[in-house]
Amino acid sequence: MCELLAMSARFPTTIHLSMDELASHGGRTGPHRDGWGLAFLQERDALIVREPVAAASSEWLACVQRHDVRSAGVIAHVRRATQGPPMLCNTQPFSRELGGRVHVFAHNGTLAGIEGDARFAAGRFRRVGDTDSEHAFCALLERLAPLWEAGEPQLDARLAELVRFAAQLRELGPANFLYSDGAVVFAHAHRRHHADGAIRPPGLHVLCRTCKAGDDGVALAAVSLPHDARQEVALVASVPLSDERWEALPEGALVALQAGRVIARA
Amino acid sequence: MCELLAMSARFPTTIHLSMDELASHGGRTGPHRDGWGLAFLQERDALIVREPVAAASSEWLACVQRHDVRSAGVIAHVRRATQGPPMLCNTQPFSRELGGRVHVFAHNGTLAGIEGDARFAAGRFRRVGDTDSEHAFCALLERLAPLWEAGEPQLDARLAELVRFAAQLRELGPANFLYSDGAVVFAHAHRRHHADGAIRPPGLHVLCRTCKAGDDGVALAAVSLPHDARQEVALVASVPLSDERWEALPEGALVALQAGRVIARA
Repeated sequence: MCELLAMSARFPTTIHLSMDELASHGGRTGPHRDGWGLAFLQERDALIVREPVAAASSEWLACVQRHDVRSAGVIAHVRRATQGPPMLCNTQPFSRELGGRVHVFAHNGTLAGIEGDARFAAGRFRRVGDTDSEHAFCALLERLAPLWEAGEPQLDARLAELVRFAAQLRELGPANFLYSDGAVVFAHAHRRHHADGAIRPPGLHVLCRTCKAGDDGVALAAVSLPHDARQEVALVASVPLSDERWEALPEGALVALQAGRVIARA
Repeated sequence: MCELLAMSARFPTTIHLSMDELASHGGRTGPHRDGWGLAFLQERDALIVREPVAAASSEWLACVQRHDVRSAGVIAHVRRATQGPPMLCNTQPFSRELGGRVHVFAHNGTLAGIEGDARFAAGRFRRVGDTDSEHAFCALLERLAPLWEAGEPQLDARLAELVRFAAQLRELGPANFLYSDGAVVFAHAHRRHHADGAIRPPGLHVLCRTCKAGDDGVALAAVSLPHDARQEVALVASVPLSDERWEALPEGALVALQAGRVIARA
Protein backbone atom coordinates (compact mmCIF):
# COMPACT_ATOMS: atom_id res chain seq x y z
CA MET A 1 0.00 0.00 0.00
CA CYS A 2 2.97 2.26 -0.53
CA GLU A 3 3.12 4.87 -3.24
CA LEU A 4 5.96 5.55 -5.60
CA LEU A 5 6.97 8.57 -7.69
CA ALA A 6 9.86 9.00 -10.09
CA MET A 7 10.77 12.08 -12.12
CA SER A 8 13.32 12.56 -14.86
CA ALA A 9 13.83 16.00 -16.42
CA ARG A 10 15.98 17.51 -19.16
CA PHE A 11 16.86 20.49 -16.92
CA PRO A 12 16.98 20.41 -13.12
CA THR A 13 13.57 21.27 -11.70
CA THR A 14 11.54 21.14 -8.50
CA ILE A 15 8.58 18.80 -8.11
CA HIS A 16 6.27 20.69 -5.74
CA LEU A 17 2.89 19.81 -7.06
CA SER A 18 3.30 16.11 -7.41
CA MET A 19 5.02 15.79 -4.02
CA ASP A 20 2.18 17.77 -2.45
CA GLU A 21 -0.25 15.35 -4.02
CA LEU A 22 1.85 12.40 -2.90
CA ALA A 23 2.16 13.83 0.61
CA SER A 24 -1.62 14.10 0.87
CA HIS A 25 -1.79 10.36 0.15
CA GLY A 26 0.77 9.96 2.94
CA GLY A 27 -1.64 10.06 5.88
CA ARG A 28 -4.31 12.60 4.99
CA THR A 29 -6.27 11.11 2.11
CA GLY A 30 -4.44 7.78 1.92
CA PRO A 31 -3.46 5.06 4.36
CA HIS A 32 0.32 5.64 4.09
CA ARG A 33 1.15 6.87 7.55
CA ASP A 34 4.43 5.22 8.33
CA GLY A 35 7.05 7.22 6.52
CA TRP A 36 8.20 9.07 3.45
CA GLY A 37 11.43 9.54 1.58
CA LEU A 38 12.78 11.65 -1.26
CA ALA A 39 15.96 11.08 -3.24
CA PHE A 40 17.17 14.05 -5.28
CA LEU A 41 19.55 12.61 -7.87
CA GLN A 42 22.49 14.94 -8.44
CA GLU A 43 25.15 13.79 -10.90
CA ARG A 44 26.61 10.57 -9.51
CA ASP A 45 25.36 11.31 -6.01
CA ALA A 46 21.93 11.68 -4.36
CA LEU A 47 20.58 13.75 -1.49
CA ILE A 48 18.17 11.49 0.37
CA VAL A 49 15.78 12.75 3.02
CA ARG A 50 13.65 10.17 4.84
CA GLU A 51 11.46 10.23 7.90
CA PRO A 52 9.48 7.45 9.60
CA VAL A 53 6.35 9.63 10.10
CA ALA A 54 3.36 10.51 7.89
CA ALA A 55 4.32 12.74 4.96
CA ALA A 56 1.14 14.80 5.24
CA SER A 57 1.94 16.05 8.72
CA SER A 58 5.73 16.25 8.32
CA GLU A 59 7.23 19.62 9.19
CA TRP A 60 10.41 18.50 7.61
CA LEU A 61 8.87 17.62 4.27
CA ALA A 62 7.33 21.11 4.33
CA CYS A 63 10.86 22.51 4.90
CA VAL A 64 12.28 20.45 2.07
CA GLN A 65 9.50 21.66 -0.21
CA ARG A 66 10.09 25.32 0.68
CA HIS A 67 13.79 24.84 0.12
CA ASP A 68 13.24 24.32 -3.63
CA VAL A 69 15.71 21.53 -4.24
CA ARG A 70 16.23 21.26 -7.98
CA SER A 71 17.17 18.01 -9.54
CA ALA A 72 17.12 16.29 -12.91
CA GLY A 73 15.92 13.12 -11.24
CA VAL A 74 13.82 12.23 -8.21
CA ILE A 75 12.68 9.00 -6.58
CA ALA A 76 10.04 9.34 -3.86
CA HIS A 77 8.18 6.91 -1.62
CA VAL A 78 5.40 7.12 0.95
CA ARG A 79 5.04 4.09 3.18
CA ARG A 80 2.42 1.98 4.85
CA ALA A 81 4.40 -0.45 6.98
CA THR A 82 3.78 -4.09 6.09
CA GLN A 83 7.18 -5.45 7.18
CA GLY A 84 9.49 -3.83 9.73
CA PRO A 85 8.48 -1.16 12.28
CA PRO A 86 8.45 2.58 11.43
CA MET A 87 12.15 3.33 11.86
CA LEU A 88 14.57 5.26 9.68
CA CYS A 89 16.27 2.04 8.56
CA ASN A 90 12.94 0.74 7.17
CA THR A 91 12.13 3.99 5.36
CA GLN A 92 12.62 4.13 1.59
CA PRO A 93 14.26 5.04 -0.76
CA PHE A 94 17.31 2.91 0.02
CA SER A 95 20.74 3.71 -1.39
CA ARG A 96 24.13 2.08 -1.93
CA GLU A 97 27.32 3.00 -3.76
CA LEU A 98 28.29 0.75 -6.66
CA GLY A 99 30.92 1.58 -9.26
CA GLY A 100 31.43 5.09 -7.89
CA ARG A 101 27.72 5.98 -8.24
CA VAL A 102 24.97 6.22 -5.67
CA HIS A 103 22.24 3.75 -6.64
CA VAL A 104 18.73 4.38 -5.29
CA PHE A 105 15.77 1.98 -4.94
CA ALA A 106 12.15 2.12 -3.81
CA HIS A 107 9.63 -0.72 -3.91
CA ASN A 108 5.89 -1.16 -3.50
CA GLY A 109 4.52 -4.61 -2.73
CA THR A 110 5.22 -7.63 -0.54
CA LEU A 111 7.85 -10.18 -1.51
CA ALA A 112 6.94 -13.36 0.36
CA GLY A 113 9.89 -15.49 1.41
CA ILE A 114 12.63 -13.42 -0.25
CA GLU A 115 14.86 -13.82 2.83
CA GLY A 116 15.08 -17.59 2.40
CA ASP A 117 15.24 -17.64 -1.41
CA ALA A 118 18.73 -18.60 -2.61
CA ARG A 119 18.24 -16.59 -5.81
CA PHE A 120 18.23 -13.42 -3.69
CA ALA A 121 20.96 -14.39 -1.20
CA ALA A 122 22.91 -11.56 0.46
CA GLY A 123 26.57 -11.11 -0.37
CA ARG A 124 28.59 -7.92 -0.08
CA PHE A 125 25.41 -5.81 0.12
CA ARG A 126 23.48 -6.36 3.37
CA ARG A 127 20.23 -4.80 4.43
CA VAL A 128 20.39 -2.29 7.29
CA GLY A 129 16.68 -2.54 8.19
CA ASP A 130 14.13 -5.35 8.26
CA THR A 131 12.23 -4.99 4.98
CA ASP A 132 11.78 -7.33 2.04
CA SER A 133 12.22 -4.25 -0.18
CA GLU A 134 15.76 -3.52 1.01
CA HIS A 135 16.59 -7.22 0.72
CA ALA A 136 15.48 -7.10 -2.93
CA PHE A 137 17.63 -4.01 -3.56
CA CYS A 138 20.72 -5.69 -2.11
CA ALA A 139 20.09 -8.76 -4.28
CA LEU A 140 19.71 -6.55 -7.36
CA LEU A 141 23.03 -4.81 -6.72
CA GLU A 142 24.71 -8.18 -6.14
CA ARG A 143 23.70 -9.14 -9.69
CA LEU A 144 24.60 -5.78 -11.22
CA ALA A 145 27.99 -5.50 -9.47
CA PRO A 146 29.95 -7.55 -12.05
CA LEU A 147 28.61 -5.26 -14.83
CA TRP A 148 29.90 -2.15 -13.02
CA GLU A 149 33.46 -3.45 -12.47
CA ALA A 150 34.83 -1.49 -15.43
CA GLY A 151 32.71 1.67 -15.47
CA GLU A 152 29.18 2.31 -16.76
CA PRO A 153 27.87 -0.76 -18.58
CA GLN A 154 25.83 -0.62 -21.79
CA LEU A 155 22.15 0.16 -21.29
CA ASP A 156 21.18 -3.14 -22.95
CA ALA A 157 23.19 -5.13 -20.42
CA ARG A 158 21.61 -3.29 -17.49
CA LEU A 159 18.12 -3.75 -18.95
CA ALA A 160 18.65 -7.46 -19.54
CA GLU A 161 19.75 -8.02 -15.94
CA LEU A 162 16.81 -5.95 -14.64
CA VAL A 163 14.33 -7.92 -16.76
CA ARG A 164 15.63 -11.23 -15.36
CA PHE A 165 15.57 -9.88 -11.79
CA ALA A 166 12.06 -8.44 -12.12
CA ALA A 167 10.66 -11.69 -13.55
CA GLN A 168 11.92 -13.63 -10.52
CA LEU A 169 10.72 -10.93 -8.13
CA ARG A 170 7.18 -11.10 -9.58
CA GLU A 171 7.01 -14.78 -8.50
CA LEU A 172 7.20 -13.60 -4.85
CA GLY A 173 4.47 -10.94 -4.93
CA PRO A 174 3.70 -7.41 -6.08
CA ALA A 175 7.01 -6.05 -7.39
CA ASN A 176 6.62 -2.44 -8.49
CA PHE A 177 9.96 -0.72 -8.13
CA LEU A 178 11.92 2.39 -9.06
CA TYR A 179 15.69 2.17 -9.42
CA SER A 180 18.34 4.71 -10.39
CA ASP A 181 21.97 3.92 -11.10
CA GLY A 182 22.93 7.60 -11.20
CA ALA A 183 22.56 7.82 -14.98
CA VAL A 184 19.18 6.23 -15.78
CA VAL A 185 15.95 5.86 -13.77
CA PHE A 186 14.26 2.48 -14.28
CA ALA A 187 10.65 1.73 -13.35
CA HIS A 188 9.16 -1.77 -13.21
CA ALA A 189 5.37 -2.13 -13.09
CA HIS A 190 3.49 -5.14 -11.76
CA ARG A 191 0.27 -5.51 -9.74
CA ARG A 192 -0.81 -3.25 -6.93
CA HIS A 193 -3.00 -3.44 -3.84
CA HIS A 194 -5.86 -1.14 -4.91
CA ALA A 195 -8.27 0.79 -2.70
CA ASP A 196 -11.01 -1.86 -3.15
CA GLY A 197 -8.70 -4.50 -1.65
CA ALA A 198 -7.94 -6.27 -4.94
CA ILE A 199 -4.38 -6.84 -6.15
CA ARG A 200 -4.22 -6.17 -9.90
CA PRO A 201 -2.44 -4.13 -12.55
CA PRO A 202 -1.68 -1.36 -13.18
CA GLY A 203 1.11 -1.08 -10.63
CA LEU A 204 2.52 2.11 -12.14
CA HIS A 205 1.55 4.90 -14.55
CA VAL A 206 3.80 7.02 -16.75
CA LEU A 207 3.39 10.56 -18.10
CA CYS A 208 5.71 12.40 -20.48
CA ARG A 209 5.21 16.12 -20.98
CA THR A 210 6.96 19.19 -22.30
CA CYS A 211 6.64 22.76 -21.10
CA LYS A 212 8.30 26.14 -21.48
CA ALA A 213 9.47 28.70 -18.93
CA GLY A 214 6.39 30.38 -17.43
CA ASP A 215 4.07 27.43 -18.03
CA ASP A 216 1.95 26.41 -15.11
CA GLY A 217 3.41 22.99 -14.55
CA VAL A 218 0.86 20.41 -13.61
CA ALA A 219 2.69 17.85 -11.52
CA LEU A 220 5.86 19.92 -11.54
CA ALA A 221 7.03 23.49 -11.27
CA ALA A 222 9.00 24.30 -14.40
CA VAL A 223 11.10 27.03 -12.87
CA SER A 224 14.28 28.74 -13.94
CA LEU A 225 14.52 27.20 -17.35
CA PRO A 226 17.10 28.60 -19.75
CA HIS A 227 15.34 31.24 -21.91
CA ASP A 228 13.12 29.58 -24.50
CA ALA A 229 14.33 26.18 -23.45
CA ARG A 230 11.87 23.38 -23.86
CA GLN A 231 11.67 21.42 -20.62
CA GLU A 232 10.93 17.73 -21.01
CA VAL A 233 9.79 15.70 -18.06
CA ALA A 234 8.88 12.06 -17.57
CA LEU A 235 6.96 11.02 -14.46
CA VAL A 236 6.12 7.58 -13.11
CA ALA A 237 3.67 7.16 -10.22
CA SER A 238 1.56 4.49 -8.52
CA VAL A 239 -1.60 6.49 -9.23
CA PRO A 240 -2.02 9.43 -11.65
CA LEU A 241 -1.16 12.64 -9.78
CA SER A 242 -2.90 15.02 -12.18
CA ASP A 243 -5.81 15.11 -14.64
CA GLU A 244 -3.48 14.57 -17.59
CA ARG A 245 -3.52 11.37 -19.62
CA TRP A 246 -1.22 9.06 -17.69
CA GLU A 247 -0.48 5.72 -19.35
CA ALA A 248 -1.17 2.64 -17.24
CA LEU A 249 1.84 0.35 -17.56
CA PRO A 250 1.10 -3.32 -18.28
CA GLU A 251 2.15 -6.07 -15.89
CA GLY A 252 5.88 -6.75 -16.18
CA ALA A 253 6.72 -3.57 -18.14
CA LEU A 254 10.12 -2.01 -17.53
CA VAL A 255 10.77 1.57 -18.67
CA ALA A 256 14.06 3.49 -18.62
CA LEU A 257 13.98 7.29 -18.18
CA GLN A 258 16.74 9.79 -18.91
CA ALA A 259 16.74 13.56 -19.38
CA GLY A 260 12.94 13.69 -19.31
CA ARG A 261 12.27 10.96 -21.86
CA VAL A 262 11.48 7.28 -21.96
CA ILE A 263 14.65 6.01 -23.65
CA ALA A 264 13.84 2.29 -23.55
CA ARG A 265 11.04 -0.16 -22.79
CA ALA A 266 11.33 -3.88 -22.11
CA MET B 1 40.52 24.36 6.73
CA CYS B 2 37.41 22.31 7.31
CA GLU B 3 35.80 21.94 10.71
CA LEU B 4 34.57 18.76 12.30
CA LEU B 5 32.10 18.02 15.08
CA ALA B 6 31.05 14.73 16.61
CA MET B 7 28.55 14.11 19.38
CA SER B 8 27.71 10.98 21.31
CA ALA B 9 24.94 11.01 23.92
CA ARG B 10 23.40 8.56 26.38
CA PHE B 11 19.87 9.62 25.37
CA PRO B 12 18.90 11.02 21.95
CA THR B 13 19.30 14.80 21.95
CA THR B 14 19.47 17.78 19.62
CA ILE B 15 22.71 19.74 19.11
CA HIS B 16 21.46 23.26 18.38
CA LEU B 17 24.06 25.38 20.09
CA SER B 18 27.14 23.69 18.79
CA MET B 19 25.76 23.46 15.24
CA ASP B 20 24.92 27.17 15.39
CA GLU B 21 28.48 27.85 16.43
CA LEU B 22 29.77 25.54 13.72
CA ALA B 23 27.51 27.16 11.13
CA SER B 24 28.90 30.59 12.00
CA HIS B 25 32.37 29.23 11.19
CA GLY B 26 30.85 28.03 7.92
CA GLY B 27 31.06 31.30 6.01
CA ARG B 28 30.31 34.06 8.50
CA THR B 29 33.23 34.11 10.93
CA GLY B 30 35.30 31.38 9.28
CA PRO B 31 36.56 30.65 5.77
CA HIS B 32 34.45 27.50 5.28
CA ARG B 33 32.13 28.58 2.52
CA ASP B 34 31.90 25.54 0.32
CA GLY B 35 29.50 23.21 2.03
CA TRP B 36 28.21 21.59 5.17
CA GLY B 37 26.86 18.21 6.15
CA LEU B 38 25.21 16.59 9.15
CA ALA B 39 24.81 12.88 9.83
CA PHE B 40 22.25 11.98 12.49
CA LEU B 41 23.11 8.45 13.56
CA GLN B 42 19.98 6.43 14.25
CA GLU B 43 20.44 2.79 15.26
CA ARG B 44 22.20 1.05 12.37
CA ASP B 45 21.20 3.78 9.91
CA ALA B 46 21.96 7.49 9.50
CA LEU B 47 20.03 10.45 8.14
CA ILE B 48 22.53 12.56 6.24
CA VAL B 49 21.80 16.07 5.03
CA ARG B 50 24.50 17.81 2.97
CA GLU B 51 24.61 20.94 0.85
CA PRO B 52 27.44 22.42 -1.22
CA VAL B 53 26.82 26.01 0.02
CA ALA B 54 27.94 27.98 3.10
CA ALA B 55 26.37 26.67 6.31
CA ALA B 56 25.94 30.18 7.73
CA SER B 57 23.59 31.29 4.95
CA SER B 58 21.86 27.94 4.40
CA GLU B 59 18.06 28.08 4.58
CA TRP B 60 18.05 24.33 4.69
CA LEU B 61 20.34 24.07 7.68
CA ALA B 62 18.01 26.52 9.42
CA CYS B 63 15.11 24.17 8.56
CA VAL B 64 16.99 21.15 9.86
CA GLN B 65 17.77 23.01 13.08
CA ARG B 66 14.14 24.05 13.59
CA HIS B 67 13.05 20.47 12.94
CA ASP B 68 14.72 19.29 16.18
CA VAL B 69 16.19 16.04 14.96
CA ARG B 70 17.17 14.00 17.99
CA SER B 71 19.95 11.53 17.81
CA ALA B 72 22.32 9.67 20.11
CA GLY B 73 25.15 10.38 17.68
CA VAL B 74 26.05 13.10 15.21
CA ILE B 75 28.91 13.70 12.79
CA ALA B 76 29.07 17.17 11.22
CA HIS B 77 31.40 18.89 8.77
CA VAL B 78 31.77 22.37 7.31
CA ARG B 79 33.94 22.60 4.24
CA ARG B 80 36.49 24.85 2.64
CA ALA B 81 37.16 23.23 -0.72
CA THR B 82 40.78 22.22 -1.24
CA GLN B 83 40.15 19.31 -3.61
CA GLY B 84 37.08 18.86 -5.82
CA PRO B 85 34.58 21.61 -6.76
CA PRO B 86 31.59 22.50 -4.50
CA MET B 87 29.22 19.72 -5.55
CA LEU B 88 27.05 17.38 -3.48
CA CYS B 89 29.36 14.45 -4.24
CA ASN B 90 32.30 16.34 -2.67
CA THR B 91 30.34 17.35 0.44
CA GLN B 92 31.00 15.46 3.67
CA PRO B 93 30.11 13.40 5.69
CA PHE B 94 30.39 10.42 3.34
CA SER B 95 28.56 7.16 4.02
CA ARG B 96 28.62 3.50 2.96
CA GLU B 97 26.87 0.34 4.12
CA LEU B 98 29.13 -2.39 5.50
CA GLY B 99 27.94 -5.43 7.43
CA GLY B 100 24.35 -4.18 7.50
CA ARG B 101 25.33 -0.86 9.14
CA VAL B 102 25.65 2.61 7.67
CA HIS B 103 29.23 3.78 8.27
CA VAL B 104 29.88 7.54 8.22
CA PHE B 105 33.15 9.45 7.74
CA ALA B 106 34.33 13.07 7.74
CA HIS B 107 37.91 14.28 7.35
CA ASN B 108 39.82 17.52 7.78
CA GLY B 109 43.20 17.90 6.11
CA THR B 110 44.92 17.21 2.80
CA LEU B 111 46.21 13.74 1.94
CA ALA B 112 48.86 14.26 -0.73
CA GLY B 113 49.12 11.47 -3.27
CA ILE B 114 46.56 9.13 -1.71
CA GLU B 115 45.12 8.29 -5.16
CA GLY B 116 48.39 6.74 -6.34
CA ASP B 117 49.34 5.06 -3.07
CA ALA B 118 48.93 1.27 -3.29
CA ARG B 119 48.26 1.05 0.45
CA PHE B 120 44.99 2.92 -0.15
CA ALA B 121 43.97 1.24 -3.41
CA ALA B 122 40.25 1.14 -4.25
CA GLY B 123 38.44 -2.20 -4.29
CA ARG B 124 34.72 -2.78 -3.81
CA PHE B 125 34.28 0.70 -2.32
CA ARG B 126 34.75 3.49 -4.89
CA ARG B 127 34.58 7.20 -4.36
CA VAL B 128 31.61 9.02 -5.91
CA GLY B 129 33.21 12.48 -5.84
CA ASP B 130 36.74 13.81 -6.36
CA THR B 131 38.12 14.25 -2.84
CA ASP B 132 41.10 12.72 -1.07
CA SER B 133 38.83 12.42 2.00
CA GLU B 134 36.33 10.09 0.32
CA HIS B 135 39.23 8.07 -1.13
CA ALA B 136 40.55 7.61 2.42
CA PHE B 137 37.12 6.51 3.65
CA CYS B 138 36.83 3.88 0.90
CA ALA B 139 40.31 2.57 1.75
CA LEU B 140 39.39 2.39 5.43
CA LEU B 141 36.26 0.35 4.70
CA GLU B 142 38.26 -1.95 2.41
CA ARG B 143 40.44 -2.80 5.41
CA LEU B 144 37.56 -3.11 7.86
CA ALA B 145 35.38 -5.25 5.55
CA PRO B 146 36.96 -8.61 6.50
CA LEU B 147 36.30 -7.85 10.19
CA TRP B 148 32.59 -7.25 9.51
CA GLU B 149 32.00 -10.50 7.59
CA ALA B 150 30.47 -12.24 10.63
CA GLY B 151 28.71 -9.42 12.47
CA GLU B 152 30.04 -6.69 14.76
CA PRO B 153 33.73 -7.26 15.48
CA GLN B 154 35.34 -6.77 18.90
CA LEU B 155 36.16 -3.15 19.72
CA ASP B 156 39.85 -4.03 20.12
CA ALA B 157 40.02 -5.39 16.58
CA ARG B 158 38.39 -2.26 15.14
CA LEU B 159 40.68 0.00 17.16
CA ALA B 160 43.80 -1.88 16.05
CA GLU B 161 42.85 -1.55 12.37
CA LEU B 162 42.04 2.15 12.82
CA VAL B 163 45.37 2.80 14.56
CA ARG B 164 47.27 1.18 11.65
CA PHE B 165 45.21 3.09 9.07
CA ALA B 166 45.60 6.43 10.86
CA ALA B 167 49.38 6.03 11.18
CA GLN B 168 49.70 5.54 7.41
CA LEU B 169 47.30 8.39 6.70
CA ARG B 170 49.37 10.79 8.82
CA GLU B 171 52.31 10.22 6.47
CA LEU B 172 50.30 11.87 3.68
CA GLY B 173 49.23 15.04 5.52
CA PRO B 174 46.82 16.35 8.15
CA ALA B 175 44.54 13.44 8.98
CA ASN B 176 41.90 14.49 11.49
CA PHE B 177 38.86 12.30 10.99
CA LEU B 178 35.56 11.24 12.53
CA TYR B 179 34.20 7.80 11.77
CA SER B 180 31.10 5.94 12.96
CA ASP B 181 30.35 2.28 12.32
CA GLY B 182 26.80 2.58 13.61
CA ALA B 183 27.75 1.46 17.13
CA VAL B 184 30.81 3.54 18.08
CA VAL B 185 32.03 7.00 17.00
CA PHE B 186 35.81 7.17 16.54
CA ALA B 187 37.81 10.40 16.37
CA HIS B 188 41.42 10.62 15.24
CA ALA B 189 43.38 13.82 15.98
CA HIS B 190 46.44 15.00 14.09
CA ARG B 191 47.65 18.45 13.00
CA ARG B 192 45.46 21.22 11.72
CA HIS B 193 45.79 24.29 9.51
CA HIS B 194 45.34 27.04 12.12
CA ALA B 195 44.18 30.61 11.58
CA ASP B 196 47.78 31.93 11.63
CA GLY B 197 48.66 29.72 8.66
CA ALA B 198 50.70 27.17 10.63
CA ILE B 199 49.93 23.46 10.53
CA ARG B 200 50.25 22.04 14.06
CA PRO B 201 48.38 20.11 16.74
CA PRO B 202 45.84 20.07 18.20
CA GLY B 203 43.71 18.79 15.34
CA LEU B 204 40.74 17.99 17.57
CA HIS B 205 39.41 18.76 21.05
CA VAL B 206 37.16 16.62 23.25
CA LEU B 207 34.65 17.55 25.95
CA CYS B 208 32.66 15.20 28.20
CA ARG B 209 29.82 16.62 30.23
CA THR B 210 26.75 15.57 32.15
CA CYS B 211 23.51 17.47 32.61
CA LYS B 212 19.98 16.98 33.86
CA ALA B 213 16.60 17.83 32.34
CA GLY B 214 16.13 21.59 32.51
CA ASP B 215 19.84 22.41 32.44
CA ASP B 216 20.91 25.08 30.03
CA GLY B 217 23.05 22.96 27.78
CA VAL B 218 26.13 24.73 26.56
CA ALA B 219 27.03 23.13 23.26
CA LEU B 220 23.85 21.07 23.27
CA ALA B 221 20.20 21.32 24.17
CA ALA B 222 19.46 18.65 26.73
CA VAL B 223 15.78 18.34 25.91
CA SER B 224 13.20 15.72 26.68
CA LEU B 225 15.27 13.62 29.02
CA PRO B 226 13.54 10.89 31.00
CA HIS B 227 12.59 12.39 34.39
CA ASP B 228 15.65 12.72 36.62
CA ALA B 229 17.78 10.99 34.03
CA ARG B 230 21.40 12.03 33.92
CA GLN B 231 22.32 12.88 30.35
CA GLU B 232 25.91 12.20 29.40
CA VAL B 233 27.40 13.72 26.30
CA ALA B 234 30.81 13.53 24.65
CA LEU B 235 31.73 16.10 22.00
CA VAL B 236 34.71 16.26 19.66
CA ALA B 237 35.40 19.39 17.60
CA SER B 238 38.18 21.03 15.59
CA VAL B 239 38.03 24.09 17.84
CA PRO B 240 36.32 24.43 21.24
CA LEU B 241 32.69 25.47 20.67
CA SER B 242 32.06 26.77 24.19
CA ASP B 243 33.90 28.30 27.15
CA GLU B 244 34.08 24.95 28.90
CA ARG B 245 37.39 23.15 29.41
CA TRP B 246 37.86 21.21 26.19
CA GLU B 247 40.82 18.84 26.14
CA ALA B 248 43.24 19.30 23.23
CA LEU B 249 43.95 15.83 21.81
CA PRO B 250 47.62 15.02 21.18
CA GLU B 251 48.90 14.19 17.70
CA GLY B 252 47.91 10.66 16.73
CA ALA B 253 45.33 10.18 19.49
CA LEU B 254 42.33 8.00 18.69
CA VAL B 255 39.26 8.12 20.94
CA ALA B 256 36.14 5.94 20.82
CA LEU B 257 32.81 7.38 21.95
CA GLN B 258 29.64 5.51 22.86
CA ALA B 259 26.52 6.53 24.80
CA GLY B 260 28.06 9.87 25.77
CA ARG B 261 31.36 8.55 27.12
CA VAL B 262 34.90 8.01 25.93
CA ILE B 263 35.02 4.21 26.08
CA ALA B 264 38.56 3.76 24.72
CA ARG B 265 41.71 5.70 23.81
CA ALA B 266 44.59 4.52 21.65
